[in-house]
Amino acid sequence: MSRGSVDKSKSEAVTNALVRRFRGGVEERTTDRLAVEAPLEIRIGSEPFTVLMRTPGNDEELVTGFLVSEGIVAHGSEIRALTRPDTIVDDDCDNFLGVELAAGTGARVTERRFFASASCGVCGKSSIADLAIRAPEVTSDLAISRQLVGALPTRLREAQPAFAATGGLHGAALFAAGGGLLAAREDIGRHNAVDKLIGWAAREGRLPLSRTVLAVSGRLGFEIVQKAIVAGIPILVSVGAASSIAVALAERYGLTLATFVKPGSLNLYGRTNRIQSPK
Amino acid sequence: MSRGSVDKSKSEAVTNALVRRFRGGVEERTTDRLAVEAPLEIRIGSEPFTVLMRTPGNDEELVTGFLVSEGIVAHGSEIRALTRPDTIVDDDCDNFLGVELAAGTGARVTERRFFASASCGVCGKSSIADLAIRAPEVTSDLAISRQLVGALPTRLREAQPAFAATGGLHGAALFAAGGGLLAAREDIGRHNAVDKLIGWAAREGRLPLSRTVLAVSGRLGFEIVQKAIVAGIPILVSVGAASSIAVALAERYGLTLATFVKPGSLNLYGRTNRIQSPK
Repeated sequence: MSRGSVDKSKSEAVTNALVRRFRGGVEERTTDRLAVEAPLEIRIGSEPFTVLMRTPGNDEELVTGFLVSEGIVAHGSEIRALTRPDTIVDDDCDNFLGVELAAGTGARVTERRFFASASCGVCGKSSIADLAIRAPEVTSDLAISRQLVGALPTRLREAQPAFAATGGLHGAALFAAGGGLLAAREDIGRHNAVDKLIGWAAREGRLPLSRTVLAVSGRLGFEIVQKAIVAGIPILVSVGAASSIAVALAERYGLTLATFVKPGSLNLYGRTNRIQSPK
Repeated sequence: MSRGSVDKSKSEAVTNALVRRFRGGVEERTTDRLAVEAPLEIRIGSEPFTVLMRTPGNDEELVTGFLVSEGIVAHGSEIRALTRPDTIVDDDCDNFLGVELAAGTGARVTERRFFASASCGVCGKSSIADLAIRAPEVTSDLAISRQLVGALPTRLREAQPAFAATGGLHGAALFAAGGGLLAAREDIGRHNAVDKLIGWAAREGRLPLSRTVLAVSGRLGFEIVQKAIVAGIPILVSVGAASSIAVALAERYGLTLATFVKPGSLNLYGRTNRIQSPK
């Protein structure tokens, strides 16, 4: 593909492009900052497995988290190596990542021979039966205050430098029970931002994430909640809305959803008693 | 899946759920309106083909538009019939739709034996080579005024009743050169909203859409621009940002992108001379 005026440096989350900008009738021809969206082809062994459209950066975490979310691996240790291919003809090696799985996990790949992708969590499922989540209920006794929940969207936003530059990236962050930031990631796809966090945790040996809170910049739909269930995250915080299936999954799997969160104001669904009122 | 307190009526875009709502320290236990997100299994012949997570409503348009966007069919007339299955065990017939293709299109299904989904436009692609867009440059000489572009986000919002009720749905609308609304659709997935519009046009025999403007409530990324190219839509209008690959595709395929659009203010990329300044 011609890159035209888009000057993409390798592995960067933000790039420059020429823009004609109009403000109150005044035109300015200038250089703009855009969020980078680029394909990442995941290969298992030497076979193409799937393509994710993602924002470059933390690719190893993204691939690890994606494989955990999709049930291909249960722990980071089931991935023996993640490697860039030596030679790719006519393309950018940064857009390929090879996965070497530990012995025994290959069967799960065959069983789930799906072609997944981009921004969604139901990729590769060809029938509704395939949507079933193979994970236990989240039974964490974590409890946090309503005040802390109300503060998390601001803390998430503060941890999103590339959004600040472009207005075009989703963010996700994991917080400890006391509100301390554990990790924050950005991506053009909100599911990718969550997979990067889950991949970070898997590589750090921190799964399941039963003592953490996940805050996201987007809405809560099937895929985000499905990923949280697989990772064992009990509390999800969003500035946006939840979908019907997100609430149904929260009730079924014991998650707490806080939506439309701002200081002093929020909606709660699912296991709501994890959010405590002021004494 | 247990539906718990979510009361989903068939084929509705909005449903009710119990919520604990806090406003300024005051709790209200009430019934909330949620955007419905539910799977739609597409079958070609009797074979499961893919699952889309979508908001029910306009399913025939969604499936038609999806098959057009993915290059499985070129015109609505290549779809002979869309039918609900007679009997589905343990599930909701509204969540299944069977496609009967005209003779000759079966080969394209086999060639693209992918499992696609939800909210993204790169589903089913297992390698980067598969992302290639098989469509000509968009050569439309359509031109509209900057004032009209600035007015379209408001007109789109006015055509989104379910968003108004839930805050949880994306919208997309097609406008004629004079600014008249041709069609508007909503969905939990912004790609679905666009596919519903393309499916509407395909069923009406209106493809390619070379004299129309597409306005969307979300950002402009790979999938939205890819769908517009396939449908021949020359001008895209968004209240959000464009990604790097969206701008690169616009330059390559001759599209006009207007982003961060509000009255008196916008950014232009690609074939910018389709947007005319005041005389």
